[in-house]
Amino acid sequence: MSEQALKYLKENRDQLLTKLNEFLSIPSVSTDSVHKKDINEAAKFLETYLNDIGFDKVEVQDTGGHPLVYAQYNQAGPDAPTVLLYGHYDVQPVDPIDLWDSDPFKPEIRDGRLYARGSSDDKGQVFMHLAVFEAYMKTEGKIPLNVKVCIEGEEEIGSENLYQILRDRQEQFEADFAVISDTGMVAKNQPTILYGLKGFTGIEINVTGPDHDLHSGMYGGAVRNPVVALSHILASMKNEEEVVTVDGFYDGVEPLPEEERELIRNVEGEDYQETTGVKETVSEKGYTAKEHTMARPTFEINGMYGGYQGEGTKTIIPSTATAKITCRLVPGQDPERIQSLLEKHVYDVAPSGVTVEIKKEKLSAKAYKVEPNHPLIEKAAKSYTKAFGKETVYVRMGGSIPVVETIEDIYKMPIVLLGFGTPDDRLHSPNESFPLDSFDKGMETLAHYWAEVIDK
Amino acid sequence: MSEQALKYLKENRDQLLTKLNEFLSIPSVSTDSVHKKDINEAAKFLETYLNDIGFDKVEVQDTGGHPLVYAQYNQAGPDAPTVLLYGHYDVQPVDPIDLWDSDPFKPEIRDGRLYARGSSDDKGQVFMHLAVFEAYMKTEGKIPLNVKVCIEGEEEIGSENLYQILRDRQEQFEADFAVISDTGMVAKNQPTILYGLKGFTGIEINVTGPDHDLHSGMYGGAVRNPVVALSHILASMKNEEEVVTVDGFYDGVEPLPEEERELIRNVEGEDYQETTGVKETVSEKGYTAKEHTMARPTFEINGMYGGYQGEGTKTIIPSTATAKITCRLVPGQDPERIQSLLEKHVYDVAPSGVTVEIKKEKLSAKAYKVEPNHPLIEKAAKSYTKAFGKETVYVRMGGSIPVVETIEDIYKMPIVLLGFGTPDDRLHSPNESFPLDSFDKGMETLAHYWAEVIDK
Repeated sequence: MSEQALKYLKENRDQLLTKLNEFLSIPSVSTDSVHKKDINEAAKFLETYLNDIGFDKVEVQDTGGHPLVYAQYNQAGPDAPTVLLYGHYDVQPVDPIDLWDSDPFKPEIRDGRLYARGSSDDKGQVFMHLAVFEAYMKTEGKIPLNVKVCIEGEEEIGSENLYQILRDRQEQFEADFAVISDTGMVAKNQPTILYGLKGFTGIEINVTGPDHDLHSGMYGGAVRNPVVALSHILASMKNEEEVVTVDGFYDGVEPLPEEERELIRNVEGEDYQETTGVKETVSEKGYTAKEHTMARPTFEINGMYGGYQGEGTKTIIPSTATAKITCRLVPGQDPERIQSLLEKHVYDVAPSGVTVEIKKEKLSAKAYKVEPNHPLIEKAAKSYTKAFGKETVYVRMGGSIPVVETIEDIYKMPIVLLGFGTPDDRLHSPNESFPLDSFDKGMETLAHYWAEVIDK
Repeated sequence: MSEQALKYLKENRDQLLTKLNEFLSIPSVSTDSVHKKDINEAAKFLETYLNDIGFDKVEVQDTGGHPLVYAQYNQAGPDAPTVLLYGHYDVQPVDPIDLWDSDPFKPEIRDGRLYARGSSDDKGQVFMHLAVFEAYMKTEGKIPLNVKVCIEGEEEIGSENLYQILRDRQEQFEADFAVISDTGMVAKNQPTILYGLKGFTGIEINVTGPDHDLHSGMYGGAVRNPVVALSHILASMKNEEEVVTVDGFYDGVEPLPEEERELIRNVEGEDYQETTGVKETVSEKGYTAKEHTMARPTFEINGMYGGYQGEGTKTIIPSTATAKITCRLVPGQDPERIQSLLEKHVYDVAPSGVTVEIKKEKLSAKAYKVEPNHPLIEKAAKSYTKAFGKETVYVRMGGSIPVVETIEDIYKMPIVLLGFGTPDDRLHSPNESFPLDSFDKGMETLAHYWAEVIDK
C-alpha cells in the first residue's frame, strides 16, 4: 500500500527539498534568547504544515519555555494502532561561525549533502516524517495508522518543560508505540537499529581565587592561581589510560560480555581517524574505541576557560576558572549518583587558597536498552533493508536521548529509534550536513514502515 | 633650588591634573590594532607637551611599530650630568570592561584616587616627570640637569622595537644614569627603593585533537579530549606545594640568605588577603608569600581555554585547547634556558592522540639586581624621605621590567627605579587607579631628586 506514496515522494522531491530548506532557514537556536522569534517561527512552520497535511488537531502549546508543536491524526480508526512521533525543531548554536563554509541558515547542496544547521539534528529528520504523511494523504487519502505528533523546541537545552508535560498530561501522549528519528546509522546507507543508548549527567566547576585579575609580578607567589588549581582538579578525574578516576564511577556497570564484544567487532563502523582527523584513536584501557563509544561510560570536558584569551600575553593571575563536564552513562549507573560522586571528588581534591563551586547540570538521563527482537523493531529493520538494499545491523551507541528514557519511564511503550543520520553529519559542529541519500531512502523506509506496522 | 618648582607644582595642581586627564583619556591600548590612531594621538600629546616645556629637540620616531617619543634637553651644559628618562605611554587592554565602575578612559577621582587605565601604569608616572620639568622651566628657567626622554608605545607588547633601537642607536640614548618610574611602593606613602626585579619568560601551549568539535556521544571513548590532555600537561608543571616540577627549573638559583629573609620580614608589605580578596595566601613550600613574590621564581597560567564557553551545556569534545604560561625569574635563571626546559617538559609529558605545539613568547628578560648603596640610589632614598616624611625601605619585587635589563646590558649605566604606584592600583585589571598622594608627593620627590643629583 506504500507504492503510491513512494511515487509521490519521488515526483515531488524538488518541492519537498525547497520546503525543507524553508524550515532549515529559520535560525531556531534554543540556547539563546535572541532567537525567541525564530523559535516561534519554526513552530509556526510546523503548525501550518501539519494543518496542510490534514491532521485533525494541530496545536502550538505553551510549555513555559519554547512552544511544543502537538498534532493528532485519528482517521485510521479505533482498530488501527497509534504511534507517538517525537522530534525537535530547535538547533544547536552555530559558533564558531567562521568555520562554516556556507551560511548555516542558508541551506546549500554540495557533493550530495545538504549543508545547514539542523539538517541532520533534527529538523531534517522531523521534516521527512511530515513529508511521508503528506505523501500518504495526497495519494491514499489517509495515513495507515493513527498518529500523535510531539515536536519540541527545547531538546538542545534539556527538554525540562516537555518532561513535566509528559508527566502531567499523560492522556495527550498515550500511544501504542513511539518512533523517534533523532539518531544515525553506523555508516552512510547502512541500516542501523539502536538497541542501546547512553545516559547522561554533568557538572560545571567554578574556581575562584583573587577577587580580580592580579598582576603576576606583584602577586605571583602569594596566591593560588585558579587556572592551575582547576588543572589539578581536572587531571585527577580521568587518567591517561582514559579510565575515570572518580571513586565509585564504575560501580554497578556490568562487564561487557564476549558475545556483545563480538557483535560490536562485527559492526562495520566508521573510520574514526578519517571522520575526526585524529592520528590515532585513544580509548579506555582494555576496550577498543568502538567498545568504549558504544558500551562503556565516558567522561568529557566540554569546555574550559579562565584568564586571558586574546592575542599575545597578559601577565595576570586570573580571578576565576571554569570547566564544563559531562559524562555518558551505561546501564547500572544512576545519573544523580554519578553527579554526586563527581561533586564529592572535586571538593575532596580541591586545593587550598581557592573557592570551588559546583553547578549540577539539570539535564540528566539514565541509559536505555531495548529488546532487539520486538516485532515493531523487526518490522523497522525489514523496512530499512527494503529501502537501503542492505541488511540492518543492531548496535548500541554513545549518544543520549533523555526523552527516550522519560517516555519509557512514564508510558512503558516500545520505542523505535529510526535514525538516518551518518557519522559525517558534524552534529553540533560547523558544517552540519545530511546526505540526500538518507533523505530519499529514509522517507522510503518510513513509508514502508507504516505499511508494515499495520500488516498483521 | 627646588623651592620654586615645588611652589609651582602646588599652585598649578588643578591645571596639571586636567592636563593629565587629557592624556589618560586617550585609549592608547597597544595590543589591539584598532587603537593605532589613539596610540599616535598619545605620542602627539607627549610631543606637544615636551615642546611646550622647552626641550631642545623633540621627535616622534618611527620604530616599525608604535612610535617612540624622544626628546633632549641640553641647557644644563656639558658639566651637568645627563639622565635618560624611560617610560611608556601605551596601556593594557581594559577587558572585562563591565567590571569597571567608571569608564577606563574618562578619568574620575574617588576617595583620593584617580581612576583610569594607565593612571598608575605608566601614563600617570610619565606625566609627573614632565610636570616637574615644566615646573623647573617656568620658575628657574632651566632644568638642573641634562635630560634625554625615551617614552615608548610598546611596553605592554614587549618593547621589541625599542630594544633594537637601543642597540642600533647607542649615541642617541647615552647618559650618566637612567631613571624609570614604572614601579610601586610596598605600601601607600611608604618610600621604596627596588634593588631587585624578576626576569621573565613564557610559552603558549596549543593542543589539537580532532579537526572539528565532536559530538561527545558519538565520539566520546574513541578520541583524546584536548582539554583533558591539556589539564594533564598543566597539572604536571607545578604541584600543590607551589613548587615548579619542570626538571632543572631551579638550577642556578641561589638559596635565599637569612639576612635577606630578615630584610623581607621587616618590610611592612601589603596585606595580600585584603588587596586580593583571597581567604589565605599560598606560597612555595619553605617560603613565605612575601619571600616567594619578592625573591623566588614563579610559574603562572595567565589564560587557558578550549571548547564551549557559553551559557548552559554543549556536549562536545573540543577540537583544541590552549594555555598561556609565563614565569618570573630570579638571578641565576636564564630566560631562554627556562623556556626550553618548559618546552621539553611539555613535549615529554604530552599524551598520545593529540598534537601539541609550543609558541615561545618572544619577550623575555633576565632578572636584575642593583647595588643599594650607590650614591644615586642613596640620593633617591633621601628625596623620597623628604617628600613622604618617612624612612625609605629597600626591597626586591616580583615584577619584570625587561627594559631595565636591556639598558643595563647595553649601556652599563646605573638605573634608578623611582616608582610611586601602590599595591591597590589594580594594574592590568579593571578599576586601575593611582593615589593623588602619590601624584603630589611623587612630583615633590622628583623635584628634590634633580636638585640632589647635581649637589656635589
